[in-house]
Amino acid sequence: MTLLLDNQFPPIPENKEIDTKGFLESVSHLPSFFDCLGSKVFAPIKADINGNITKIKAVYDSDPVKFETLQQILLAEKSIHGSEWPKAGATLALMWLKRGLRFIQILLESLADGERDDNNPILIRINITKAYDQALKSYHGWIVQKVFKAALFAAPCRSDFLKALSKNQEVAEEDCLSKVRQFLINFTATVDAIYEMYYTMNAELDYQV
Amino acid sequence: MTLLLDNQFPPIPENKEIDTKGFLESVSHLPSFFDCLGSKVFAPIKADINGNITKIKAVYDSDPVKFETLQQILLAEKSIHGSEWPKAGATLALMWLKRGLRFIQILLESLADGERDDNNPILIRINITKAYDQALKSYHGWIVQKVFKAALFAAPCRSDFLKALSKNQEVAEEDCLSKVRQFLINFTATVDAIYEMYYTMNAELDYQV
Ligand SMILES: CCCCCCCCCCCCC/C=C/[C@@H](O)[C@H](CO[C@@H]1O[C@H](CO)[C@H](O)[C@H](OS(=O)(=O)O)[C@H]1O)NC(=O)CCCCCCCCCCC
Ligand SMILES: CCCCCCCCCCCCC/C=C/[C@@H](O)[C@H](CO[C@@H]1O[C@H](CO)[C@H](O)[C@H](OS(=O)(=O)O)[C@H]1O)NC(=O)CCCCCCCCCCC
Repeated sequence: MTLLLDNQFPPIPENKEIDTKGFLESVSHLPSFFDCLGSKVFAPIKADINGNITKIKAVYDSDPVKFETLQQILLAEKSIHGSEWPKAGATLALMWLKRGLRFIQILLESLADGERDDNNPILIRINITKAYDQALKSYHGWIVQKVFKAALFAAPCRSDFLKALSKNQEVAEEDCLSKVRQFLINFTATVDAIYEMYYTMNAELDYQV
Repeated sequence: MTLLLDNQFPPIPENKEIDTKGFLESVSHLPSFFDCLGSKVFAPIKADINGNITKIKAVYDSDPVKFETLQQILLAEKSIHGSEWPKAGATLALMWLKRGLRFIQILLESLADGERDDNNPILIRINITKAYDQALKSYHGWIVQKVFKAALFAAPCRSDFLKALSKNQEVAEEDCLSKVRQFLINFTATVDAIYEMYYTMNAELDYQV
């Protein structure tokens, strides 16, 4: 995520309709966030998120005018896919993608807020676990939850993670965190708006994988 | 792997030089083996193996005459990649692919031999664990080993696995296992020949992921 903090999300307009093109451009920098975690163990997660983005982009590219905003995609797909919807198309891809975005948001927030495990202050497992519990856990069956617990041990320590966020340059922790806070403003507003849209359109599902 | 048992590997010639084209055609049916395991948890494994096959195929397609046999690929790449070799190109891809093939071989053999856990006779965890221990475990660090242990719980029970091997038709267990034994003849000979080639050419590495 060398690139993440340098690629602010666009502010969302008052009507909260998110421009698909701008959104796709911003999220395209996110998969590299998982490289910041430093282990190949996270490659399947990166691949899953990449898959979501590719799927949404393919729908958008098929008709950039019709699919100008994320709302328009959900509305159009609702009538295209009939009873399969919302478990179909870009609607499904964005449903999962938003959970990964929420995970990133909560993790960064928790770090910016200085939350730590006093018994393991150099680690970020407590922050990752908080993000996982709130964003993903309930959509994962017990086996995937167990896989998560194992993968957690591959997480980097706090200082390596912050360094990776700062393009691998040595940066004072406070400087890095203030960049994180800046990044979170539009990012959180975007994620919130997407969640709200799924809620309003009755497009959220709670099945487990 | 509805297709696996129906796609016998070609017999290997006396000089044990494996024809690249025939090999690629046969292994192309293997990734679906992991669908037989019945859970999406195995998707990253399928993707990894697909990646290996794609990489070998790309090298072969770049010059089908020069790369007619797997031996020719290793020899040519040894001089192309210099000190990076064998951790490069199709040599690296086949190094990992052969471990997945060995895993499949040992799992099928163990089932054909009737090995079972008497305390859990309807499960195949004992067979999968045997295959994992012999083919892969030593190349995995402790975190991936832990992930494996968690993923093991997603394995199907014996009867569902055999049914999946038999194109989801109800087939007598003995009929299915005799097909497995038939399949294993050329398959095992091929895998053995590849291992021997890596040994002879000093192309094997033992680093862990
Ligand atoms: C040798 C032994 C090896 C054994 C192999 C075991 C492998 C274990 C499997 C690991 C799972 C990898 C994560 C992927 C999980 C995915 O299954 C889920 C659902 O994925 C969705 O599924 C839909 C259909 O239901 C569509 O296909 C979506 O695709 S569609 O675009 O086609 O519509 C797709 O994203 N995504 C998720 O749960 C999203 C995950 C986001 C993760 C965010 C960060 C977590 C960070 C954790 C840090 C510690
Ligand atoms: C929400 C939380 C989610 C957290 C996510 C956690 C995800 C956990 C990660 C799971 C790992 C998936 C398996 C893949 C492992 C791979 O890392 C290894 C090495 O993979 C090799 O690496 C090389 C570089 O060193 C090249 O890139 C090779 O690629 S190259 O082609 O480019 O040269 C590549 O195959 N392959 C392997 O270990 C091979 C695995 C074969 C597996 C055979 C069957 C096992 C069956 C088990 C049944 C129970």
